[in-house]
Amino acid sequence: MAHAVHAQRMSKLMLKTLRDDPADAETASHKLLVRAGYVRRSSAGVWTWLPLGKKVLENVSRVVREEMDAIGAQEVLLPALLPREPYEISGRWDEYGDLLFRLKDRKGADYLLGPTHEEIFTQTVKDQCTSYKDLPVILYQIQTKYRDEARPRSGVLRGREFQMKDSYSFDTTDEGLAESYRLHREAYQRIFARLGMDYRIVSAVSGAMGGSASEEFLAPAAAGEDTFVDCPQCDYAANTEAYTITVPPVEGESHGPVEELDTPDTPTIETLAEHLGVPASATLKNLLVKVDGEITAVGVPGDREVDLGKLAEHLAPATVELVTAEDFADRPDLVRGYVGPQGLAGTAFRYLADPRVAPGTSWITGANKQDTHARNVVCGRDFEVDQYLDVTVVEPGDPCPRCGAGIELDRAIEIGHIFQLGRKYADAFQLDVLGQNGKPVRVTMGSYGIGVSRAVAALAEQTHDESGLCWPREIAPADVHVVAAGKALQTELALEVGDKLAAAGVRTLVDDRAGVSPGVKFTDAELIGVPTILVVGRGAKDGLVELKDRKTGEREELTVDAALARLTA
Amino acid sequence: MAHAVHAQRMSKLMLKTLRDDPADAETASHKLLVRAGYVRRSSAGVWTWLPLGKKVLENVSRVVREEMDAIGAQEVLLPALLPREPYEISGRWDEYGDLLFRLKDRKGADYLLGPTHEEIFTQTVKDQCTSYKDLPVILYQIQTKYRDEARPRSGVLRGREFQMKDSYSFDTTDEGLAESYRLHREAYQRIFARLGMDYRIVSAVSGAMGGSASEEFLAPAAAGEDTFVDCPQCDYAANTEAYTITVPPVEGESHGPVEELDTPDTPTIETLAEHLGVPASATLKNLLVKVDGEITAVGVPGDREVDLGKLAEHLAPATVELVTAEDFADRPDLVRGYVGPQGLAGTAFRYLADPRVAPGTSWITGANKQDTHARNVVCGRDFEVDQYLDVTVVEPGDPCPRCGAGIELDRAIEIGHIFQLGRKYADAFQLDVLGQNGKPVRVTMGSYGIGVSRAVAALAEQTHDESGLCWPREIAPADVHVVAAGKALQTELALEVGDKLAAAGVRTLVDDRAGVSPGVKFTDAELIGVPTILVVGRGAKDGLVELKDRKTGEREELTVDAALARLTA
Repeated sequence: MAHAVHAQRMSKLMLKTLRDDPADAETASHKLLVRAGYVRRSSAGVWTWLPLGKKVLENVSRVVREEMDAIGAQEVLLPALLPREPYEISGRWDEYGDLLFRLKDRKGADYLLGPTHEEIFTQTVKDQCTSYKDLPVILYQIQTKYRDEARPRSGVLRGREFQMKDSYSFDTTDEGLAESYRLHREAYQRIFARLGMDYRIVSAVSGAMGGSASEEFLAPAAAGEDTFVDCPQCDYAANTEAYTITVPPVEGESHGPVEELDTPDTPTIETLAEHLGVPASATLKNLLVKVDGEITAVGVPGDREVDLGKLAEHLAPATVELVTAEDFADRPDLVRGYVGPQGLAGTAFRYLADPRVAPGTSWITGANKQDTHARNVVCGRDFEVDQYLDVTVVEPGDPCPRCGAGIELDRAIEIGHIFQLGRKYADAFQLDVLGQNGKPVRVTMGSYGIGVSRAVAALAEQTHDESGLCWPREIAPADVHVVAAGKALQTELALEVGDKLAAAGVRTLVDDRAGVSPGVKFTDAELIGVPTILVVGRGAKDGLVELKDRKTGEREELTVDAALARLTA
Repeated sequence: MAHAVHAQRMSKLMLKTLRDDPADAETASHKLLVRAGYVRRSSAGVWTWLPLGKKVLENVSRVVREEMDAIGAQEVLLPALLPREPYEISGRWDEYGDLLFRLKDRKGADYLLGPTHEEIFTQTVKDQCTSYKDLPVILYQIQTKYRDEARPRSGVLRGREFQMKDSYSFDTTDEGLAESYRLHREAYQRIFARLGMDYRIVSAVSGAMGGSASEEFLAPAAAGEDTFVDCPQCDYAANTEAYTITVPPVEGESHGPVEELDTPDTPTIETLAEHLGVPASATLKNLLVKVDGEITAVGVPGDREVDLGKLAEHLAPATVELVTAEDFADRPDLVRGYVGPQGLAGTAFRYLADPRVAPGTSWITGANKQDTHARNVVCGRDFEVDQYLDVTVVEPGDPCPRCGAGIELDRAIEIGHIFQLGRKYADAFQLDVLGQNGKPVRVTMGSYGIGVSRAVAALAEQTHDESGLCWPREIAPADVHVVAAGKALQTELALEVGDKLAAAGVRTLVDDRAGVSPGVKFTDAELIGVPTILVVGRGAKDGLVELKDRKTGEREELTVDAALARLTA
């Protein structure tokens, strides 16, 4: 049953634009999506999508759905209200900590609001698939997710209730998983290209999810909460956790013997470098930690910081703690502020070091005596390294591992994540299918996410200008925004043009509001950010209208017919 | 970016049909939706929609969306996770009792999972609309709702997490509300007609929602949890709560004087009627209750039951309780089992009565003495009725208020509800807009719901047969189900035909599964319930296929080209 198609009239649209930024808004997308009437805050990190916002959200969902369908993924809809048991089996009921919204039903049974659905998809496939012939299978849903963020902020960029596309692949072989991963990677490239998103694919170290190959899709934006390594010379880009330094080989060089230096009151690198008048990079900093309770030292150049997160990631599942005053009290051989590896590395403690502490390099470091340091302490001659680890904080200018140029650190929004989970969940839920040889085969999985509501905010961040939002056409709430700037003549013509465009399949918004000045209408049109603005103004009596490109600001006056022909071409 | 269109191959579809009904399933829709692989239970009353089920759910949503858009309703998306405060203001935080899923966030703040969204829509409009010029407005969403049902059952017919379309209208005048209500009523008629639903519109008494005009859309089905009054002679239909009896005028008739009867051990109507050898309808039953603590009697013919729910509804906001042994102990004038209104009605207690207890009618009733009844107790002569109330349980054969024929009581599923809320929520939230005269006007609201996931189950209930599901075309998961019944020749032709149909825009499923017998494929096709089945079998070598109508079972053999022409016409 077809209904007559009309343009959306702004006189009938529930829309209240605001001139002022919301008091708590810090990012452009938060300010503009609220001011232009796309979203309104319901509670902290929980948002209502108003009519224009719902259209944009739906457009993003449609693109995602089409590209997921195109790789043969099957759409399903899982509940958001989930029982505790499967999350106990995976361990995530506890691991998620305060991030998980937990609740009880009337009978006192425990439930949670799904943050992601690995457990339930695994159970679903265990129920539905029994043979290798049933695989591979890729399932996806576009659904509401919940995370009780400690500091929900930046509007819909990081909410506590949000829309996400999550998909999961199930294969019997590693090659199959690699293929499902490749299909997703390519689908994501098409999705973000269609959305008009500027993005980078960076290799990522898995976080709490556990697993192997993993890449993030990052949208560079000042408002982003993620920092990534970007090479200005080549196409290298990486999550800071995934960046690896390259150390040039050390030239054979002879060093003098170890020599003690009287360095009173220099327990920090800063005080030491100043006292000796040497750069911090000439000194060797030895950070003491306890790895599963055992004292361990981490040696890095004095100008570098140890990233404790990276260190913990490298040493997992061992626990890593900083040493305390009591630990020093128990170990008089370790002189706080004056520890050096010479004579101790490998005996008093395990010695881990940054790759820059390469064999043949010479350092100023603690002499293991109060108020005393040593110089000419040579790696490989005066101490040995038990294990090299890349655990320093990345800094701008560090070498690109691909071309050697100084890298940059940029801010970005994580808009997608693809991840070879492997058999972690299949093991937890004993997900086997009957193999070709008649024996059970453990299934291997991938998990893949796109933040659908977040993508809306990321696009707003990337495409807005000082006048307002400025949507790529594919996700804009309309193709054309017709502004009736004048009296009855202009309004009538605007409505006529709008309905003709709508009848031709052009998504059209007509600002037919009575008692609203042309100036306010222009300002609202710029704020709302539909890609083409058609102004019906003074020229209307001569059958002329103005077309304006929202992004470039280019204007052109032409006849109504020419404008219609252009826009429906 | 267009993608090549292919038929959905069952060899790639995640689908496991079951031969046996799930152990806990009682209704046809529950059994068949599970057996045909549309849904799977996640936890009590919480369901996963598998690929075929998601398609049907999406088709229902699309029809609803198109018809809501056609009446100018604007789609939004409100959160499911809602703060406590607005529900405190409306009183529903408490009123909902155990039906509400409640939870706390990491800071201990109270939240709920939305059962319906009157409060939040009211707040949204208060935020967005300031003038009578901004109204009327109709907003809707298709969204996940939550109700912690005590006995979730019947599959997706009554879930604890479910999909619902809820809409809300906002007007400044009663006439405006009536018009928004009419628009919804007509949209609902179009929606249910398009869905292929057999439905009745019945007037309904509002439940916990409070308000005035209200109608329910009921889908007659044996599995329904609602009973409604249906006239077999005319088009009268009503919710049992809304049915009103019509009492023929009592002919002027003279009755003898009140006469006492010795009726030992007859404290119930049953024992009394048997003892006296009269029909129960000749006796007057007096039910004693406390209304706000005051003893009140309700007189109904002895063959009728009082519907305590109806009684409470009529007397709200007063509380209604049954009298206890202590109450009798306090009131020696009330002889338990032998109460009559004569001499007591209007003095010892307020006397409410069923309209059948009309002036001039004569009754056998208690004589207010142990083991004694009285006959010839005439209404209007021997006792007066303080208030007539229609509070008896409706029974089959009761008179149709429109044509007088004996009504039937049928089971149905409530699939929609339209409701003039009036100013209840606008009062609670002080929702005013500036009126035409410059003074604030209180807004009047309507609320309207369609159970989207429930509609899927209701259609399954109404349209299935002994072989399986049997979908109306508009919501079927596909238009055509091609069965490859044979070897490579048949499979190749089936896929070719399927892809040609798909390319022509016909939604097509091809059963190309290898190693599955034609018999199993036929059984699965009947179970899945796509409206047209195209069998590629023995005739394939001669270019012949068979078309079968799932509903009527009609079969026809024709050439491939003729079949394609027929199906793409």
